[in-house]
Amino acid sequence: MTNILFAARHERWPDYEQPLRDSLAELGLKADLRTDFPPEEVDYIIYAPNSAVTDFTPFTRLKAVMNLWAGVEAVVNNPTLTVPLTRMVDPALTQGMVEWVTGHTLRHHLGMDTHIHAKPGEWISQAPPVAWERKVTVLGLGELGRACAESLARIGFQVTGWSQGPKAIDGLRCLHGAEGLTEALSGAQIVVLLLPDTPQTENTLNGKTLALLAKHAVILNPGRGPLIDDDVLLAALDSDQIGHATLDTFRVEPLPAEHPYWHHPKVTVTPHIASETRAAWSSKTIAENIRRGQAGEPFLYLVDRTRGY
Amino acid sequence: MTNILFAARHERWPDYEQPLRDSLAELGLKADLRTDFPPEEVDYIIYAPNSAVTDFTPFTRLKAVMNLWAGVEAVVNNPTLTVPLTRMVDPALTQGMVEWVTGHTLRHHLGMDTHIHAKPGEWISQAPPVAWERKVTVLGLGELGRACAESLARIGFQVTGWSQGPKAIDGLRCLHGAEGLTEALSGAQIVVLLLPDTPQTENTLNGKTLALLAKHAVILNPGRGPLIDDDVLLAALDSDQIGHATLDTFRVEPLPAEHPYWHHPKVTVTPHIASETRAAWSSKTIAENIRRGQAGEPFLYLVDRTRGY
Repeated sequence: MTNILFAARHERWPDYEQPLRDSLAELGLKADLRTDFPPEEVDYIIYAPNSAVTDFTPFTRLKAVMNLWAGVEAVVNNPTLTVPLTRMVDPALTQGMVEWVTGHTLRHHLGMDTHIHAKPGEWISQAPPVAWERKVTVLGLGELGRACAESLARIGFQVTGWSQGPKAIDGLRCLHGAEGLTEALSGAQIVVLLLPDTPQTENTLNGKTLALLAKHAVILNPGRGPLIDDDVLLAALDSDQIGHATLDTFRVEPLPAEHPYWHHPKVTVTPHIASETRAAWSSKTIAENIRRGQAGEPFLYLVDRTRGY
Repeated sequence: MTNILFAARHERWPDYEQPLRDSLAELGLKADLRTDFPPEEVDYIIYAPNSAVTDFTPFTRLKAVMNLWAGVEAVVNNPTLTVPLTRMVDPALTQGMVEWVTGHTLRHHLGMDTHIHAKPGEWISQAPPVAWERKVTVLGLGELGRACAESLARIGFQVTGWSQGPKAIDGLRCLHGAEGLTEALSGAQIVVLLLPDTPQTENTLNGKTLALLAKHAVILNPGRGPLIDDDVLLAALDSDQIGHATLDTFRVEPLPAEHPYWHHPKVTVTPHIASETRAAWSSKTIAENIRRGQAGEPFLYLVDRTRGY
C-alpha cells in the first residue's frame, strides 16, 4: 500500500478526491489517499504551495512531491524539501485559457449582452461587424498569450501581439518594447491581458495607456490583477472611454462583495476560472507520476532545483 | 450617368446608401443612386426579393438586376425579368455565421450567463470542462454548417456533423440519413441547426429528437425557424430536459413581442443577425458588377436561370 497525502486547501479535496482515486485505479495502483497521515507514513505528497505543509522534515519516508500548480516558485526553494519535486503540466490549462479568451472576445465582438438582456420585442436587426474589422491586442506572448492570439487570428480577428522582447509569430502583427506598446494599444478595440505579474508590468493599464484605446474598447483580464490600475479603469468605464471590462483576476481574491467591480454595470467578474488546473486532467498526470515512482522510472515534469522550474 | 435603383425594404436604405456610394466612387463610377426613378430611366436595380418591385416590364432600359441576397428563389422565376440576374456571394455571410455559432457555443460551454448575471460576492471558482469533453452536433453540412463545424472542431470541441446524404470532412465525425440523425443527437450537449428549410426538415427538433439529447442540452438555431417544433421546445425547457435555447430564426420575423420565446428565462432571442449580408462587403460586390456591366465584361455570380441559382 502506497500512502498519499493530499496537501492543498481544504476546499479542493472534494474536486480532487474522486478523479485521483479513479486515475490511481486506472493504473492499477493500490494507494491509501487521504488529507491526513502521520508524516512518517507518507510516500507521496500531492501538494499545493498554499497548503498548511511548509516543513517537509517530518516526512521521513517521502519519495516525491507532486505539485498541483504549474508554478513552483513558492516551494522550489524550501530547504526542507530534499526529494524530487514535479510540476503540473496540464494541456487543459492552456486550452481553458484559449476558450475563455476566445469566448469572451466573441461575446463582446458580437454584442451578445444586448441580446441576453433584450426586452420582449426588441428586434434591432443590425449585424455586428465581422472579425476582420475588429482590432484585438493581446499583451503578453508567453505560452498562454500566444495560444490565445493564434486562436483569435484563426477566427479572423485583426490581432496584434505585444511582448517585452521581440517575437515573430505567423499571422500576427508582433510588437515589443515601450514604443511597441503604444502602437499596440493605439486604436485597439479589445485588449487581452496575459502578462506575468512583475514590478515592471504593474498598472500596465493606467490613465495613459487606456487613453490610447479606441473609444468604448473592451478589456479582458485573465492574466493578473495588478496589471490594471483599478481606480483608473473604473473612472474610464464611468466616462465611457472603456465600454466593458471582463475580469478573471484581481489584486485580492476572492474579490470582496463590496468591491466596485461587482457593482459596476459594465464589469463582468469571473471567479478566476479562465485557466484552472482541471482535477480530471491533472489527476491523470499525478497518478502516472506515482506509478513511475513506484516502478523506479523517471518522473514526468521533474523540477530542476538549480534552474528553479 | 448610370441610374441605379435601390429596390429593397425602406429600412435597409440607411444601411446601404453610404457603403454603395463609397464602393461606386472607389471604382470611379459616375452613378445616380436612388430609391425612386421613373422605371424607363433605370440602368441597374439593386434588388431584395421582398421589395415592392415585382413587375420588371416597365424597366425598358434595364441592363441587370443585382440581388442583395444569396437566395434568389423568390425572383428567379419571375417571367417579367429578362435581363441578367446576379446573386450575392459575400464572404462576410459565412464569416458572420461562424462567429455567431462559435461565440454562442463558447458562451454556453463556459457558462458565461452565470457570470454575466452573478450577484456581488458570488465567487464559485469552478472551472468549466474543456471543449474536448463537450459534444457538439451540427445538423446540416452545407457551406455554412461545414464552416461552423470546422471552426468548432479547431477550438477543440467533439464535433459530430449530420447531413441528409453522406459527407466526409476532416476532423469531424460525419453521419447521415435517418439512422445517423438518431446517433448524431444521442447524448449531444449542444446542437446547432443549419439545415435548409424544406418540407423534410420541418420540426427536425421534435419531442422524439429532443429526448435523445443529453440532459440540459443547449439548442442554437441560426438556420430556419420551422426546423423546431416551438411548443415542444418550450415544454422541454420547462421540464429542464433542455437547458437553454439561443435562437436567431423564427417562423414569424420579427418575433412578436408576445411570443413565449421573448419571455422564457432560458431562451435568448437574437434578431436574425447570425448571417446577414453586411452592407459594406456586399456593396463592393455590387459596385464591381455595375462596373462590369458598363464595361461589357461578364458579371460575377450570374444566376443560371434554367438551373435556378
